[in-house]
Amino acid sequence: MISRHWWRIIPAVTWLRRYGSRELSSDLVAAIIVTIMLIPQSLAYAMLAGLPAQVGLYASILPLVAYALFGSSRALAVGPVAVVSLLTAAAISRIAEPGTEGYLGAAVALALLSGMMLLTMGLLRLGFLANLLSHPVISGFITASGILIAVSQLKHILGVDAHGHTLVEMVSSLARGLERTHGWTLLLGTGATVFLFWVRTRLKPLLRKRVGLPPFAADILAKAGPVAAVVVTTGAVALFDLDAQGVAVVGDIPQGLPPLTLPPFDLGLWSNLAISALLISLIGFVESVSVAQTLAAKKRQRIDANQELTGLGAANIASAFSGGFPVTGGFSRSVVNFDAGAETPMAGVFTAVGIAATALLFTPLFQALPKATLAATIIVAVLSLVDLGAIRRTYRYSRTDFAAMAATIFIVLGVGVEAGVVTGVALSLALHIWRTSRPHAAVVGQVPGTEHFRNVERHSVVTSPQVLTLRVDESLYFANARYLEDTVYDLIARSPEVSDVILMCSAVNVIDASALESLEAINARLADAGVTFHLSEVKGPVMDNLQRSPFLEELSGRIFLSQYQAMETLAPDTIRRARAASAA
Amino acid sequence: MISRHWWRIIPAVTWLRRYGSRELSSDLVAAIIVTIMLIPQSLAYAMLAGLPAQVGLYASILPLVAYALFGSSRALAVGPVAVVSLLTAAAISRIAEPGTEGYLGAAVALALLSGMMLLTMGLLRLGFLANLLSHPVISGFITASGILIAVSQLKHILGVDAHGHTLVEMVSSLARGLERTHGWTLLLGTGATVFLFWVRTRLKPLLRKRVGLPPFAADILAKAGPVAAVVVTTGAVALFDLDAQGVAVVGDIPQGLPPLTLPPFDLGLWSNLAISALLISLIGFVESVSVAQTLAAKKRQRIDANQELTGLGAANIASAFSGGFPVTGGFSRSVVNFDAGAETPMAGVFTAVGIAATALLFTPLFQALPKATLAATIIVAVLSLVDLGAIRRTYRYSRTDFAAMAATIFIVLGVGVEAGVVTGVALSLALHIWRTSRPHAAVVGQVPGTEHFRNVERHSVVTSPQVLTLRVDESLYFANARYLEDTVYDLIARSPEVSDVILMCSAVNVIDASALESLEAINARLADAGVTFHLSEVKGPVMDNLQRSPFLEELSGRIFLSQYQAMETLAPDTIRRARAASAA
Repeated sequence: MISRHWWRIIPAVTWLRRYGSRELSSDLVAAIIVTIMLIPQSLAYAMLAGLPAQVGLYASILPLVAYALFGSSRALAVGPVAVVSLLTAAAISRIAEPGTEGYLGAAVALALLSGMMLLTMGLLRLGFLANLLSHPVISGFITASGILIAVSQLKHILGVDAHGHTLVEMVSSLARGLERTHGWTLLLGTGATVFLFWVRTRLKPLLRKRVGLPPFAADILAKAGPVAAVVVTTGAVALFDLDAQGVAVVGDIPQGLPPLTLPPFDLGLWSNLAISALLISLIGFVESVSVAQTLAAKKRQRIDANQELTGLGAANIASAFSGGFPVTGGFSRSVVNFDAGAETPMAGVFTAVGIAATALLFTPLFQALPKATLAATIIVAVLSLVDLGAIRRTYRYSRTDFAAMAATIFIVLGVGVEAGVVTGVALSLALHIWRTSRPHAAVVGQVPGTEHFRNVERHSVVTSPQVLTLRVDESLYFANARYLEDTVYDLIARSPEVSDVILMCSAVNVIDASALESLEAINARLADAGVTFHLSEVKGPVMDNLQRSPFLEELSGRIFLSQYQAMETLAPDTIRRARAASAA
Repeated sequence: MISRHWWRIIPAVTWLRRYGSRELSSDLVAAIIVTIMLIPQSLAYAMLAGLPAQVGLYASILPLVAYALFGSSRALAVGPVAVVSLLTAAAISRIAEPGTEGYLGAAVALALLSGMMLLTMGLLRLGFLANLLSHPVISGFITASGILIAVSQLKHILGVDAHGHTLVEMVSSLARGLERTHGWTLLLGTGATVFLFWVRTRLKPLLRKRVGLPPFAADILAKAGPVAAVVVTTGAVALFDLDAQGVAVVGDIPQGLPPLTLPPFDLGLWSNLAISALLISLIGFVESVSVAQTLAAKKRQRIDANQELTGLGAANIASAFSGGFPVTGGFSRSVVNFDAGAETPMAGVFTAVGIAATALLFTPLFQALPKATLAATIIVAVLSLVDLGAIRRTYRYSRTDFAAMAATIFIVLGVGVEAGVVTGVALSLALHIWRTSRPHAAVVGQVPGTEHFRNVERHSVVTSPQVLTLRVDESLYFANARYLEDTVYDLIARSPEVSDVILMCSAVNVIDASALESLEAINARLADAGVTFHLSEVKGPVMDNLQRSPFLEELSGRIFLSQYQAMETLAPDTIRRARAASAA
């Protein structure tokens, strides 16, 4: 009997015990398809991160095994992905020059830091931190990153040198290089791009309608487009010796399994990379969980967010110790894995074996692979991340959310990816504090003929000139505590005849220490002004909390169970008037 | 006729039009008392900030006039205060050495930056940013600052040299200097301290009970204690030539009105000081508004928080242009001003005239004033800021609030004042996000014999095995959107027989764009799992917003006006069972 404790840390224990031949064959088929798809992606995203091609392969071996052991999703396929590779490039190019030993070391350190952060968050159940990334910020970030990545790859399509981290820098650098465009490279690059676009948009309907393939087979064949592009363009280069003509190729990739690497233990480097690692961790986690939940829901399985943190953390640590770079769950390859019938994370282990075999045996085949083809696969993949519809929808739905989204997009494009995310998060928080710092609050009066009390501005109600009742439709906490004070002081400054103020707490679920201090201040200041302060309809848990403070003893007035009872006691005349109004 | 527009920017226009001889005499009396109290405070807080004594006087002249014109409080007395002086010292000692030209310039630049920030926040109505400072963080910060300030002044009482920014540094530096304690200084310093403590704790009751003075007169006389200490110890030094014996004195203070200074326009310096200026602005503002509201409430007057930002901004800019340092509203001197009968901000203008006369004529009198006396006034003043009771109350009331408070105190004492505030704010936000990221949510069922639906775990209710209803007691926004998704997916993963899910929105006041995306994801994923998704009891404004999105068209199920109607339509059997249960 395996103890429950073990199961919690290593979910693999559960599914491995029921692993049979049916699962084996399903997982094998899925793994073969994902392996074929993952090879060009691994090489391409390593290039995007400014790293040697083999690093992409290394990041697609051990991390998959680690995730299979510790992750909670049955179908998630981890490995290098576009957005995280862009963030990696942004972070480590601040530290070292691409192509140097230091650059590679920084990539490994980044994977290690990110892995340790994810693991820590998983163990301490800090997954809620990902909530800081609101949907508009994430969506704006992904769209802007997609544009930035696509533009950054144009230099490979044109066969020119270009640099820059912002859109303006990249475009102006490209424009300066335009006249040195390399003909053969351009031909291969645009050919591959047009072909991949055609595959993506036209081939699938064609295969389904004309050839009559079932949807998932059509989908998988369409996603094999990059493999065809790789084979054809590599063949062309090899056949016509185009690399001698100046077509940039991937070149020699060392043959062999990933080396066991000890990540650099350098506190200076680590503190330099800490913020970047945190951003990569959170963004990778949010994207990955979203994919995993989409797939799990289809089979009514569940994803444990904290277990996902552990799984992704283990994957990144494995990446660091095998010469890789930061990884996370990829959207399109997870969908392929799911559609191809993967039953358990064993499919990931088989994929890792496939990539390991590639690294060991087949790397010479990629020697003549043009970089322009990899750039074309990246461009076509990331342009599907650009979601202009989401921008329009957000604009129509909420201007404050749109403000956070627009700021994220502009800062990502104009300043940098990290600054963009940080700005977006800060702005989301500030807008949230602003929004909740002025909760809906209303002066209420009695609806004649009932025991209900409603907003005086919306309903025809009976009020007392001496007893003023304020209802606040929100929990009271630090962001709105001062607003509550302001509102009460304003009300009594405007109504000199008021002798009693009742705060109706029917919608108050929490009163935190700041709000408690504000209530104490309101009580004391109203007493100074000769006004008695009461509460009504305080919920049970809130009352329990208040009893642990001296507020109830200091309160100048009383706590009433119901608002009606409060008015019966403090303003019996008004109750009588309401009765008369209802009789009339 | 003065236009309403003018009135809004310069509140002084309103009260000046009704200014008469009654107001004049009240304001004059209050001004004389406040001037006498403010002189030693100005000198002391300049010393605390590491600045020459005259800078304290300069900061108590033009800023008072500027506040009188632009502020909204009738009784607030602005000028140098302890906590802001400590923050000033912490900020500018990073930039330059005390006693240098650069140190003075940095103090002036800090006042200018802080003034511009306050003014900008006032004009853009950004006062809500002060809500980021929760009560526990402010209270912890003030207590820790009080301790830090008191310890920092011990060196003046002992007459030794000591340095350090953290409690440990200060105490160990003091301990090393202890053997060089200067006898005469120690005598004067402890004498003044003991006297001031006696005045503060014993004199007032004595004056009231034995002498029979009215409360406010006793209070004001007790607060004149520092003046007596200044007069007596200065006299002693002058008489016995104690400065020649090694007692440190204030020394020569240049005679004259504040010079018109142009604050250094140095973008490097400004960006170095920006965060410090922001903290000083927010903390000064929060403290000042709290004092102003306490006093205004007593006369049922109102404080406009945004106008207060403008007033404090103007005061700090005036300080910068007259060679001063950051100022804000002081608690004890505002109370004295109010109790002494100040009717309008004109009292502040008269106080400014009094301090200007002092700067012009009487500075030679302070030549022999021992620094130990100033240190004693600071120590006695700031120890009243230390509120250990608040720590205990917060601990009993809420552990999360206490965590934020404790972190603030430890970081202020152990690392520094600015790091303490930033940590406290970050922790408050994180704890708030954590708290609201898991709103109260309940599966509900029908209470037999009623149309009410209640939590299945608390009430005996009737539920349907096919139709599951979830009620969330919180607005849906980015911090809890993913929790909502998790909760729904968990529920359907655990209940394979469920065919319909109803989200009961009776407590949802807002659905932001993140929550909308989550609802769309829930809808799509439930549809994948063959489950229909419905909403019930959606509030009017929330519905208006949803209509601006494609969600309502995509929704697999329906929107029901009431939960009862939803169950009538989707699970008529259950309604019948509930009727039978109530009949039985």
